[in-house]
Amino acid sequence: MEWTRASCAASNEAARAAALARQGQLTKPPGALARLEDIAVQLAALQGVERPQLQRIHISVFASDHGVAAEGVSVFPQAVTAEMVRNFARGGAAISVLAKQLSATLEVINLGTVSVVEALPGVRDERIAAGTANFLQQAAMTETQLAAALQSGRDAVLRAKQSGAQLFIGGEMGIANTTAASAIGCVLLQIAPVLLSGPGTGLDSSGVAHKARVIEQAIALHHLSHANPLAALRHVGGFEIAGLCGAYIAAAQQDLPVLVDGFISSVAALAAVRINPAVRNWLLFGHTSAEPGHQRVLDALDAQPVLQLGMRLGEGSGAAVAVPILQLACALHNGMATFAEAGVSEKD
Amino acid sequence: MEWTRASCAASNEAARAAALARQGQLTKPPGALARLEDIAVQLAALQGVERPQLQRIHISVFASDHGVAAEGVSVFPQAVTAEMVRNFARGGAAISVLAKQLSATLEVINLGTVSVVEALPGVRDERIAAGTANFLQQAAMTETQLAAALQSGRDAVLRAKQSGAQLFIGGEMGIANTTAASAIGCVLLQIAPVLLSGPGTGLDSSGVAHKARVIEQAIALHHLSHANPLAALRHVGGFEIAGLCGAYIAAAQQDLPVLVDGFISSVAALAAVRINPAVRNWLLFGHTSAEPGHQRVLDALDAQPVLQLGMRLGEGSGAAVAVPILQLACALHNGMATFAEAGVSEKD
Repeated sequence: MEWTRASCAASNEAARAAALARQGQLTKPPGALARLEDIAVQLAALQGVERPQLQRIHISVFASDHGVAAEGVSVFPQAVTAEMVRNFARGGAAISVLAKQLSATLEVINLGTVSVVEALPGVRDERIAAGTANFLQQAAMTETQLAAALQSGRDAVLRAKQSGAQLFIGGEMGIANTTAASAIGCVLLQIAPVLLSGPGTGLDSSGVAHKARVIEQAIALHHLSHANPLAALRHVGGFEIAGLCGAYIAAAQQDLPVLVDGFISSVAALAAVRINPAVRNWLLFGHTSAEPGHQRVLDALDAQPVLQLGMRLGEGSGAAVAVPILQLACALHNGMATFAEAGVSEKD
Repeated sequence: MEWTRASCAASNEAARAAALARQGQLTKPPGALARLEDIAVQLAALQGVERPQLQRIHISVFASDHGVAAEGVSVFPQAVTAEMVRNFARGGAAISVLAKQLSATLEVINLGTVSVVEALPGVRDERIAAGTANFLQQAAMTETQLAAALQSGRDAVLRAKQSGAQLFIGGEMGIANTTAASAIGCVLLQIAPVLLSGPGTGLDSSGVAHKARVIEQAIALHHLSHANPLAALRHVGGFEIAGLCGAYIAAAQQDLPVLVDGFISSVAALAAVRINPAVRNWLLFGHTSAEPGHQRVLDALDAQPVLQLGMRLGEGSGAAVAVPILQLACALHNGMATFAEAGVSEKD
């Protein structure tokens, strides 16, 4: 896993300055496009050009099951993970619909559903195991399994880069994975499980309280430290969370901007940044999830997501919904006339 | 102006119920798409179909000058209004770029620039006067002028409806028009001008204080009452604000859903709702502007905009940026598989 600490690409400060200067000349009061200006300038710096482009979007959804589901931490049965893999492939899931609307490339990477899923177009079978182990009893995965999950994420980014993607979105599917994400987040942020435990797909308040107790017991069992994010991923994580983490690190190393989705993805991003701090520069954030712990994770990453729509679905869906905003930011930046070009008077 | 009080179209409660039932069957935890679900269901009720469509977007930008500009309430010279009309027509303005990206119809309606603008494609010359009168000295417009401005808005909606538009966006351009909008808003909400006065295109704090005093004097001069919104529009309004108001009322009467833009548009919407309360049902709100008074106007309308991006440009730009979110809401609603179709297990 040594590659995870290799250096990340630098952003292009000359391109950033050129884009900023351009924004100051466009026919609008200074700053009137606000976040849209920031997004265009940030993408300019990351792409190394004055006028960034965002046509080719790559979405990788990592799916996997969780041993901790046996503790009753989700309202949905574990079979849903594999069933949703099929739904992704057949075009019926939210992320399938969004990818089609965005003309984005969508691939699903099965890192470990409990049941074998038949070969399906658009689904890569990279199963590491039949789900992780129950981390209330033992480490969720072995060192070898963690390395494989991280590498699967890296491989997804290399495929995206190879195909000319200009933006990478990672998504996840895995019954019980908010429990794993909360556990990792609590270790990295050194906060009590009750602060990062939420309803996930629909737990009631007693369900949330039970989930927090499960996380508390798991953290006590494994003696985890915020200083060792890879150990947190291995002991209380999930294959798909590690896949996302590996993908984010690789994207930053391959100069591919990332649009992060919701709670689980943001925890994976936090782990990536703790492993390799230069990753942060390459991350944009799509939305603030309704999952109550998300804001704490965003704060720790100093992240201001584009959208606040109360979504809490995962799959990469919140990031996908934000894509048109980023595209319009680029279109405005690239297509608006300057005061000089339009013959419009400037401020008195 | 009697037409402004004519009844509005009713939304279709059977279509709303069918859309709600469909949302409950789609392969996601209940409510996980949150605002996107609400938007799809609302559009279903307004369009009267279980599965709403949002391909044809009509944008009318109303432009006009303001006599009150003579009081030094804007940092930009008055010439900018006509210059921006040309910029709209030539494709260089923000709304021009956005309309092109959305494949939306864009028309500009010149209701009264101070200078005559040469004939330009996409610009309708409906000049009522060379700007409004300075409302610090006299009523901004006559009864006849107000009726003409409202009618121009109505005509824009009739054109949109004729061409099969599924969503109407109104935009505005007019140097000093945040001053007129704030004055109307203060009358309708019965609050002090300092609470609705903001920087507009870039006033500093002393400029904002001066603007609030101008509004205060104007309101005192004209003896306006919140019970007479048409009088407020006439005495301290603007042609483009009245045009927007007329358009919103006509859209509700013609069963054409509206996506409201920022501060000035929202004040026009507030006036429309005060004239004819049933208009409210047909209004969706695109974004929360950085103009500090906007939130108060939104609160008065019980409106929760889709986006919070800190934009403050007008032209309809904030609404236009929100269009893809509405379109994705429809695509998800219409395109996702149900649990039964996908063979996905429901909650335990």
